[in-house]
Amino acid sequence: MTTQHDCLALDAADPLAALREQFALPAGVTYLDGNSLGARPKAALKRAQQVLEAEWGDGLIRSWNSAGWFALPSRLGDKLAPLVGADKDEVVITDSTSVNLFKALAAAIKLQAADPARAQRRTIVTERDSFPTDIYMAQGLIEWLDRGYRLELVDAWDQLPAALHDDVAVLMLTHVNYRTGRMFDMASVTALAHEAGALMIWDLAHSAGAVEVDLNAAKADFAVGCTYKYLNGGPGSPAFIWVPRRHQGDFSQPLSGWWGHRQPFAMQPSFAPTAGVRRALCGTQPITSLALVECGLDVYEQVSMAALRRKSLALTDLFIALVEQHCGGHGLELVTPREHAQRGSHVSFSHPQGYAVMQSLIAHGVIGDYREPQVMRFGFTPLYTSYGEVWGAVQTLKRILDEGDYEIDAARGAVT
Amino acid sequence: MTTQHDCLALDAADPLAALREQFALPAGVTYLDGNSLGARPKAALKRAQQVLEAEWGDGLIRSWNSAGWFALPSRLGDKLAPLVGADKDEVVITDSTSVNLFKALAAAIKLQAADPARAQRRTIVTERDSFPTDIYMAQGLIEWLDRGYRLELVDAWDQLPAALHDDVAVLMLTHVNYRTGRMFDMASVTALAHEAGALMIWDLAHSAGAVEVDLNAAKADFAVGCTYKYLNGGPGSPAFIWVPRRHQGDFSQPLSGWWGHRQPFAMQPSFAPTAGVRRALCGTQPITSLALVECGLDVYEQVSMAALRRKSLALTDLFIALVEQHCGGHGLELVTPREHAQRGSHVSFSHPQGYAVMQSLIAHGVIGDYREPQVMRFGFTPLYTSYGEVWGAVQTLKRILDEGDYEIDAARGAVT
Repeated sequence: MTTQHDCLALDAADPLAALREQFALPAGVTYLDGNSLGARPKAALKRAQQVLEAEWGDGLIRSWNSAGWFALPSRLGDKLAPLVGADKDEVVITDSTSVNLFKALAAAIKLQAADPARAQRRTIVTERDSFPTDIYMAQGLIEWLDRGYRLELVDAWDQLPAALHDDVAVLMLTHVNYRTGRMFDMASVTALAHEAGALMIWDLAHSAGAVEVDLNAAKADFAVGCTYKYLNGGPGSPAFIWVPRRHQGDFSQPLSGWWGHRQPFAMQPSFAPTAGVRRALCGTQPITSLALVECGLDVYEQVSMAALRRKSLALTDLFIALVEQHCGGHGLELVTPREHAQRGSHVSFSHPQGYAVMQSLIAHGVIGDYREPQVMRFGFTPLYTSYGEVWGAVQTLKRILDEGDYEIDAARGAVT
Repeated sequence: MTTQHDCLALDAADPLAALREQFALPAGVTYLDGNSLGARPKAALKRAQQVLEAEWGDGLIRSWNSAGWFALPSRLGDKLAPLVGADKDEVVITDSTSVNLFKALAAAIKLQAADPARAQRRTIVTERDSFPTDIYMAQGLIEWLDRGYRLELVDAWDQLPAALHDDVAVLMLTHVNYRTGRMFDMASVTALAHEAGALMIWDLAHSAGAVEVDLNAAKADFAVGCTYKYLNGGPGSPAFIWVPRRHQGDFSQPLSGWWGHRQPFAMQPSFAPTAGVRRALCGTQPITSLALVECGLDVYEQVSMAALRRKSLALTDLFIALVEQHCGGHGLELVTPREHAQRGSHVSFSHPQGYAVMQSLIAHGVIGDYREPQVMRFGFTPLYTSYGEVWGAVQTLKRILDEGDYEIDAARGAVT
């Protein structure tokens, strides 16, 4: 049996423990929802003040050059790149994950349609359990293309090999599932897609900054992801898109706005894409939100993804073990795989009253979140979650389940 | 001849003069580029601090509901609506102008293609002198649709009637031209488009908050615009899209992300659009940048667009008169129409050395900007530009032209 003493000893020996000091976390809260919105780096407050006072207020229009605003999507993209196994000039931070997925899928279809060996393929495969916006964007794109493309939704991930038939143009998957926390083996699944003649797009929303990712080693084709979860970029901060060097020359997508133009200030009446990954840009970017992404990325420069992954697995292992030791007999079922190679950085348990239990947890200061159906998610962000917090969160969960008062708490209208 | 004394008297009698106090403008600068990036409302600093500290830092994930983040696009859209003659629930603030134009044009094509009377039409008409990203987005969309749509670029605005032949599906125009400052008569041009059987899309980038706009009175079909120019929303702040109530039920566009879903949190594997203008939303929005838009909109609640327009015309009239009185013989040519009904809120003069002259002006504290070819733009934002500043700016321009040292200044690498 793991004791509270053991947890505190893990904290005392944690080489990453000091990183927590760089985040502003409210007192009285155990935050296990960094997988949905990361905590605020303390540096972000000063950076926001700088953007507003010196750059916007004093620099005004001059700051597009003098403060480097126009370069931000690629400069910050280069800073994010090593976290996902990308090279310099392969990542831009821009727009939303949904919009970037649209670009990536459109570019993949364009590539596929231009290749005589697979031009006739018309199937796009993804998981039914993907985060829905990915499915919606694919539906929107293929409905508008109106060239016979169809979306096939795979129900269980072990059905993937069978789903990769010879009509599949693109396989599009979320690396770590938003609900279950289950992680695909990026290299082997990408190889499977390629063997089947399909292109491979990864959504890294729950991976970037949470688990080790090596897009180039996996030879993936395109990837997108968000910066507001584990990367702590701020609420709704702009997302990223990865276009590997080998595809950049052929990268083409319909959202061809002026920021992706070869000469954006020449004001030419015809689109001509710029070189490199900046051709994935479209319109003018929200600079304040974009600039703050750097504060989250700066923290990652002080630590290796390998060290973060070690701590992440230790945290999720501990949480699973403690829940099973202390909360048995209450109908909780582990949704997340036990195998390290198949686990991201959050752990989900289902419970028939999952929504009510989560509301009660939040009311008692343990913030996780709830996803239909019946799933309670707990995110463990190794930059600032401590082993002692894991102990405390499980004790709170145990108390709520033992006392059975969660339906009443939920009826009080606790925050969601 | 207008004297400096006259200008100062105009300031003393200006009922809007006190509004300037609500903006943080740097000392020693005459800012005539609010038509490109509006000045910072002083309130934005405190609002940013609130978003970062109370909402992101303390509220964390709870702020999506408790701080109203999820509602921001429509709540702020309702606040912007009266400035452009839109009704409640007809405007959302979201994404970039480029992305919103893509949505509007896609929706217009869908409407047109569904109408048997005009389903065969395949021409989209716009101006060659439109801000290029509008042209690029239209090119991207129709190339991807691959259904025979073509873009026709009109060279001069008096050629519009002839360009509206019976194959025209959509007329897409910028209300106030970004380069010349020339303004279309929205009602009569919209009527012209409708008489020709075409749908009408307006880009209000240089109109919203600058001139009186009444989209519903003009019976326009769709409109987009930005919030970072006259509306003072901040660098690259999210743009807006207007979908009138009569088109909302049929509004459909390919960027069908989860924020536009009827039940975004039900996690259903099939897209179903929500009711109202929120179906124009796509992915998660950059909350910090979006929230700051409100500070700019709040200033507009203290003043009528009619009063702003009166001052705007007085400022541009004064600038034109003073330049012609003081800077004659230097090769300046007025590009902007003299007729009030055809003028927005900026004034452009062309000059063979326009780029160098503008660099020199900026180096001397008068910030306007330059647009190819040879065009110097001066924006007059009645919320904070004074008549005395107009006088001073013209005197600086006169000195630079008289002394002829602008090529040297430009060579020094002054800011752009």
